[in-house]
Amino acid sequence: MFYHIQKLINPIVDDEPDPSAANALQEGLGGQFGEMRTMMQYLFQSFNFRGDGKAYLDLIQGIGIEEISHVELISKTISKLLDGAPGYKGKKFDVPGKGGEAPMEMAKEQKNPHHFIVGAQGALPVDAAGNPWSGSYVHCNGNLVLDLLDNLVLESTGRLQKCRIYQMSENKTLRATVAFLIARDEAHEMAFAKALEALGVEWNKLLPIPKFDSSRYPEVKKLIDGGINREQYTFRIDGSDMEKIFRGSAPANDGTQLVTLAEPREKYDIPEAPERPEEFSPGLDPELQALADALGEAKAKLKKPSKRENTHR
Amino acid sequence: MFYHIQKLINPIVDDEPDPSAANALQEGLGGQFGEMRTMMQYLFQSFNFRGDGKAYLDLIQGIGIEEISHVELISKTISKLLDGAPGYKGKKFDVPGKGGEAPMEMAKEQKNPHHFIVGAQGALPVDAAGNPWSGSYVHCNGNLVLDLLDNLVLESTGRLQKCRIYQMSENKTLRATVAFLIARDEAHEMAFAKALEALGVEWNKLLPIPKFDSSRYPEVKKLIDGGINREQYTFRIDGSDMEKIFRGSAPANDGTQLVTLAEPREKYDIPEAPERPEEFSPGLDPELQALADALGEAKAKLKKPSKRENTHR
Amino acid sequence: MFYHIQKLINPIVDDEPDPSAANALQEGLGGQFGEMRTMMQYLFQSFNFRGDGKAYLDLIQGIGIEEISHVELISKTISKLLDGAPGYKGKKFDVPGKGGEAPMEMAKEQKNPHHFIVGAQGALPVDAAGNPWSGSYVHCNGNLVLDLLDNLVLESTGRLQKCRIYQMSENKTLRATVAFLIARDEAHEMAFAKALEALGVEWNKLLPIPKFDSSRYPEVKKLIDGGINREQYTFRIDGSDMEKIFRGSAPANDGTQLVTLAEPREKYDIPEAPERPEEFSPGLDPELQALADALGEAKAKLKKPSKRENTHR
Amino acid sequence: MFYHIQKLINPIVDDEPDPSAANALQEGLGGQFGEMRTMMQYLFQSFNFRGDGKAYLDLIQGIGIEEISHVELISKTISKLLDGAPGYKGKKFDVPGKGGEAPMEMAKEQKNPHHFIVGAQGALPVDAAGNPWSGSYVHCNGNLVLDLLDNLVLESTGRLQKCRIYQMSENKTLRATVAFLIARDEAHEMAFAKALEALGVEWNKLLPIPKFDSSRYPEVKKLIDGGINREQYTFRIDGSDMEKIFRGSAPANDGTQLVTLAEPREKYDIPEAPERPEEFSPGLDPELQALADALGEAKAKLKKPSKRENTHR
Amino acid sequence: MFYHIQKLINPIVDDEPDPSAANALQEGLGGQFGEMRTMMQYLFQSFNFRGDGKAYLDLIQGIGIEEISHVELISKTISKLLDGAPGYKGKKFDVPGKGGEAPMEMAKEQKNPHHFIVGAQGALPVDAAGNPWSGSYVHCNGNLVLDLLDNLVLESTGRLQKCRIYQMSENKTLRATVAFLIARDEAHEMAFAKALEALGVEWNKLLPIPKFDSSRYPEVKKLIDGGINREQYTFRIDGSDMEKIFRGSAPANDGTQLVTLAEPREKYDIPEAPERPEEFSPGLDPELQALADALGEAKAKLKKPSKRENTHR
Amino acid sequence: MFYHIQKLINPIVDDEPDPSAANALQEGLGGQFGEMRTMMQYLFQSFNFRGDGKAYLDLIQGIGIEEISHVELISKTISKLLDGAPGYKGKKFDVPGKGGEAPMEMAKEQKNPHHFIVGAQGALPVDAAGNPWSGSYVHCNGNLVLDLLDNLVLESTGRLQKCRIYQMSENKTLRATVAFLIARDEAHEMAFAKALEALGVEWNKLLPIPKFDSSRYPEVKKLIDGGINREQYTFRIDGSDMEKIFRGSAPANDGTQLVTLAEPREKYDIPEAPERPEEFSPGLDPELQALADALGEAKAKLKKPSKRENTHR
Repeated sequence: MFYHIQKLINPIVDDEPDPSAANALQEGLGGQFGEMRTMMQYLFQSFNFRGDGKAYLDLIQGIGIEEISHVELISKTISKLLDGAPGYKGKKFDVPGKGGEAPMEMAKEQKNPHHFIVGAQGALPVDAAGNPWSGSYVHCNGNLVLDLLDNLVLESTGRLQKCRIYQMSENKTLRATVAFLIARDEAHEMAFAKALEALGVEWNKLLPIPKFDSSRYPEVKKLIDGGINREQYTFRIDGSDMEKIFRGSAPANDGTQLVTLAEPREKYDIPEAPERPEEFSPGLDPELQALADALGEAKAKLKKPSKRENTHR
Repeated sequence: MFYHIQKLINPIVDDEPDPSAANALQEGLGGQFGEMRTMMQYLFQSFNFRGDGKAYLDLIQGIGIEEISHVELISKTISKLLDGAPGYKGKKFDVPGKGGEAPMEMAKEQKNPHHFIVGAQGALPVDAAGNPWSGSYVHCNGNLVLDLLDNLVLESTGRLQKCRIYQMSENKTLRATVAFLIARDEAHEMAFAKALEALGVEWNKLLPIPKFDSSRYPEVKKLIDGGINREQYTFRIDGSDMEKIFRGSAPANDGTQLVTLAEPREKYDIPEAPERPEEFSPGLDPELQALADALGEAKAKLKKPSKRENTHR
Repeated sequence: MFYHIQKLINPIVDDEPDPSAANALQEGLGGQFGEMRTMMQYLFQSFNFRGDGKAYLDLIQGIGIEEISHVELISKTISKLLDGAPGYKGKKFDVPGKGGEAPMEMAKEQKNPHHFIVGAQGALPVDAAGNPWSGSYVHCNGNLVLDLLDNLVLESTGRLQKCRIYQMSENKTLRATVAFLIARDEAHEMAFAKALEALGVEWNKLLPIPKFDSSRYPEVKKLIDGGINREQYTFRIDGSDMEKIFRGSAPANDGTQLVTLAEPREKYDIPEAPERPEEFSPGLDPELQALADALGEAKAKLKKPSKRENTHR
Repeated sequence: MFYHIQKLINPIVDDEPDPSAANALQEGLGGQFGEMRTMMQYLFQSFNFRGDGKAYLDLIQGIGIEEISHVELISKTISKLLDGAPGYKGKKFDVPGKGGEAPMEMAKEQKNPHHFIVGAQGALPVDAAGNPWSGSYVHCNGNLVLDLLDNLVLESTGRLQKCRIYQMSENKTLRATVAFLIARDEAHEMAFAKALEALGVEWNKLLPIPKFDSSRYPEVKKLIDGGINREQYTFRIDGSDMEKIFRGSAPANDGTQLVTLAEPREKYDIPEAPERPEEFSPGLDPELQALADALGEAKAKLKKPSKRENTHR
Repeated sequence: MFYHIQKLINPIVDDEPDPSAANALQEGLGGQFGEMRTMMQYLFQSFNFRGDGKAYLDLIQGIGIEEISHVELISKTISKLLDGAPGYKGKKFDVPGKGGEAPMEMAKEQKNPHHFIVGAQGALPVDAAGNPWSGSYVHCNGNLVLDLLDNLVLESTGRLQKCRIYQMSENKTLRATVAFLIARDEAHEMAFAKALEALGVEWNKLLPIPKFDSSRYPEVKKLIDGGINREQYTFRIDGSDMEKIFRGSAPANDGTQLVTLAEPREKYDIPEAPERPEEFSPGLDPELQALADALGEAKAKLKKPSKRENTHR
Repeated sequence: MFYHIQKLINPIVDDEPDPSAANALQEGLGGQFGEMRTMMQYLFQSFNFRGDGKAYLDLIQGIGIEEISHVELISKTISKLLDGAPGYKGKKFDVPGKGGEAPMEMAKEQKNPHHFIVGAQGALPVDAAGNPWSGSYVHCNGNLVLDLLDNLVLESTGRLQKCRIYQMSENKTLRATVAFLIARDEAHEMAFAKALEALGVEWNKLLPIPKFDSSRYPEVKKLIDGGINREQYTFRIDGSDMEKIFRGSAPANDGTQLVTLAEPREKYDIPEAPERPEEFSPGLDPELQALADALGEAKAKLKKPSKRENTHR
């Protein structure tokens, strides 16, 4: 069973909107090696897990839970990169089609017009070429060794693609998120490689993949200096055996150590997204808005829902 | 950010394996109106939410969080229905192909042979016709009224399909889960209908869809008698405004009242799935198993990970 | 602009339900060479037609209009073959899940469970393997010669597949429709081959494809004896140049002559489909039914809509 | 059974070619909420219709027939927007590759190169991101209430997307068609909402969706002033019960009245598309052209096909 | 550039037709981890290869060339398993629909009716659930380490699935081919693992995946006894550096040695497939057959094409 | 069984990188009428071939073998057009993200960002709109006449599309390959048309399709002057009956003659692709490179693999 808090796993950094950067980042969300796949692959593997290897289950599932928060983070980042994009190339935006103007003229030229026609300048479950995410991406073989190796390939490919995306834009909103994901993908590589190490494999100098010192990217360096590329979190309220695997020397064999924590050391506020009248979003006219507003008032004395903590123990 | 506890939202009931019932239930997991879609649709809508209608956001997202637990429940149910299915039509199973026997002969005749060739008698992210789940199922329009109406259609179609699946098998494993989902889909219909009611719509006698007293199904009746078709949970650790909408008389206009809770009143143990040597799952031979077992021993003095509660406040 | 009359282009013949025959026939509806493709391919070719070859345009479009009626016919046939199928293997059907029975138990074993879970024992826009119809099936090259040749291949493949389906069942409902489509596909082969003949090609003894005397099938023979495999209809209210091409000796070079008509010599009643409570279809409970019924009464004095004929001339 | 006249439901307005506007408009044709879906969804719902609610059947099917004419209109519009586009950015077009020049150099930079490589500057059955139309878009649940609600969501989403597309271009060809579709989608919203009203729902101020006075768009205003957003046509040659539902006050509750007509008050000529030698379209060289021309001559005395009117009564 | 000889890489063994075994084997041909993917993945990787690591290129491409022969072998095997299948359940086959009989009645009940409706009892480019093969299966990252690891996962998954398929049927036609593929997949695992070993990885006891002694399958044992699970062939007419990698001790660390050869030690005749009149295949009637036969006669004095050997040296 | 030599069927000509030309050319590789389809369609048709029409089998398969070499050629061409493209719009490339620069900034604006994010400036198995290749493109009907006609349509459409692509760019790398493919597609049109001629069809002046004298393109003229549009190669090491069909006057009826050869008169070197550090391709750091280099040294005395010629006779 799953729970949520209204916090992000990494902050959204402010910068100009950039629709083609948003589109490139879609690969990291809805691409074949993006976060929607890692999330679903690890969740399916843990739901279908066989046998008594609880430490392996907890490792796979723990990373899977984190990936939901990555989907949250990357969606918010894409939305932020798109938000206000009608003004991207300088045309001042006005209320919808006042007198028949075309305030979103630039939209039809963007990499994925669906960002403006279908979404409302928000993230979509598609990749950077506009293909919708597919369930066929999820590999869940039921063979532990193979699943671990497949997961290692998945994280490595994800990290490779994000290193490439990093080099495609200097936009700070994009880079803050991509840098975080590069560091976390490296941690996940360590996790699956360590699990295979426990089964006998010695990696020597092969890892990480790509074999590239990502601390040459300043945004990544700052995160790595904080150690997040060697930490893994359980996100499990009632305990986890993850640490039986994720501990000791990192399989990158670079002298670093692996650390298991219950959750990240910090959490970050979720920025609100403003209304976008040109997208009819949220699309409440004054009459409907008045009805909606009424919900927020006059109900101050609501008995608050009994706290989760009260029931789950 | 998301968390997990090792509990199910409804119990897995024991019965014989039944691969074609498992296949029918795949529609409820990976179908166009199944739980993978509800989960992703509501999460995307909440991540892309615009404006200050926090009560609406909390309602949509709260249901979205629940749907992750539904994906967990329905995956475990399908796995349970498939587990041991090589013995389904009476052929005793032996170790893999001893002397070249064909212990899984029945597998190639089943509705979806992928359950045996690709998965290891586990759930797949596909529908009952074998089509992989697609990102195109997710509707996230960014227009609040439209999204609420789309969600109502989604829950209604889900409930309709599950009522039909209920009538396709008397298998208790299947029915326990389907009955629960019928009741919960009805609660979710109430949620989105109530949100539209707040914007002026009067439903009179139209709801629920299908217009069918599901308490005629004994397994559903028991759950409804407990009230779960009129409850909604926030699953939010740090509070929610869901109750501003989900309260008062139900939009079914049948005299019932809506109740918001932090989480379900009960949680249930997650059954372990046994090894399946005929599927090479998990596939550790004695040498590898010895290495894996070593993880469970000699590390008893592990410092336990600091509790989540210590850091997230 | 398009119009409709409540008539079928061929009668629906009565026989037992047969879900696997219905599934085979789906290939003729939603398959890569089925009627949905012929309809969309010819309509797209006519909408995108370039140049002044009006006779070619009218030929392609006339056949395209007919294909909409084929989609109508084949959909009704599939629905008829599925209708009441819960009783197919002998289990008496009762009202939905009375006391929790499983009246549709056979449904989950059928070729495409979507016929029962998603549709309500009705036709679906998919092929016989359950794949949804795809826009990529439509070939519209904008090159007249190539489009005609592609259309000839399309009709030939359609006829080949229907000849195979004919041999898969003796069900009269299936065969009446399949026999009609075999005869009409042959007429359409003649049409496109004749258009190519006008551009110089001599077919000698190559046609029809497959090179098989389909009059060996009794149901087809009866139709061919009536001449429908050498007729083509314009379905055009305001005139057509189709006959400039579709006339004279047939390109099968078997002594037959081509005849252009405004529409088929006969039309047939559309059978109503009964309610299916086990599918919650149409799903009106007594309260809603009473509201629906009210529409049929008390409005007897409605001024009838002005006839189409009054306005379109 | 279906018929056609060589007229359009709205005129094609002349303006410059604009390939990216054409691409945006593809969403309205082959997108998940475009006209190909509305057409197929309503036709499937009417072919699979169960029970005796003839007024509901006639309403759904009548709109479905209209949608075929919308597919025709929008295809012609896209073709018009693409036609001659090689000259779009100023390069004068010459005969194909004379001396090896590249007259269509701009084509490979356009939003969907398929418009030039696959089509011949004509409409394609794809969406604005280049994904082919899919049969999975068609929802046909067989439950009347649910189908009506799904249809209302479909029309509302279609109208939302077209309002957004309107704001992306001031091209007159695009806007004339989009304005017409916005007005008609609103009429269709009224139709399905009214059908639900007949079953008890009161919409108060929720409709239309998006809640936006589209008469602020001048091209829409002109059409609305003519009343077409409150009319519905039966397109049925032999009568319809549509008017039993589509009459009385509009469910927008804005004082307007619903009017059922046999067909639109006006029809418009279909413009011919010129040859495009750079696309080899239609691609007849002088020899083949002479053969084709022969069809138009010397056959003046053809007995005209007997009029449809002669046989269908 | 590629060449062909009319020989198979493994013999087709005779047994009864078995359509559901054929369908299971489709996974090995057109599945996500089947031979169409291995073939295309390795060919794309070798065509896009960067840098001067010629030994790696030759290893990847050599295996890719072999996979074309695997596609040939597995296609012929599926066709053999399907051939004559209308008589599968005992109904004697007669010429097409004599008097309207249904000689292929069993066909519509088979796992994939496309084998009979679309193909003519021949192999299809689809998987065991009927999904068409997709280009998205091909992973070609351009990063050597990652591609090698991805290839190892691909071969391991292929071997796992084939071990499962082996256990689904005792049909000799199926097993001869599956046993061969299990042995070859193991050789390919060795190849990619050895290439990674050259880059520092030590596998210890992890390989092969699945960790299962496939010599317990008698058909596999016979092949392994012949050593083919430790051989790799270059299939390169003008030389290869493959042996620089594929030599020395096997990375399974079981005492075996790797051997590079130019091609397999033996080749096998390709069986002809008989005509299938019930499928209209090849579908030449007596007139057309006479024309076809004329090609084989009276042209005995044809100057034979100059031998390939004459030109390529 | 298949073999390979390290030669190309046509040379790669040097010119500037041009990513949008590369993207257009993807249609010729992974499009519905591209070389991946021709290759797979003819191979499947030959593997599933029925009956004793060996000359037809050899014709179809011989062209199929050639198509593998076309896939090789076109892949190398696309890679060449993409290679170094980060400098395409003038920005000097540096090592990956030195100090966080964005050396691949232009990449996210290109037609298909996958060329840079997923591939490493290499060819992908997708079309010009980014859709992955699909197995549903392969038509293999098992009816000889129909398959030949389908193949003729396939080659004609391929030639049409390539003539259009030719007109989209003057880039010499693109044009050298496209010109070759136009000429070869014409040869293949002749082959399938001739096979149909043997069955009685007379084409008169219909061919080639498009009816366009491609020798007006200088690059094509040069090839045609060399005669390659009337040659076909068997690529069969152990003999072929292709010449029984492919001989005599061409079905274009332009006075030319058909010539069957064992293989093309010339072969061309395969250019190496340089490393691309900005893509982490091949991605070996100094440590790994040293290990890789070791393979090339100290093994000079390797016994060379026994020549293919030694074993296959």
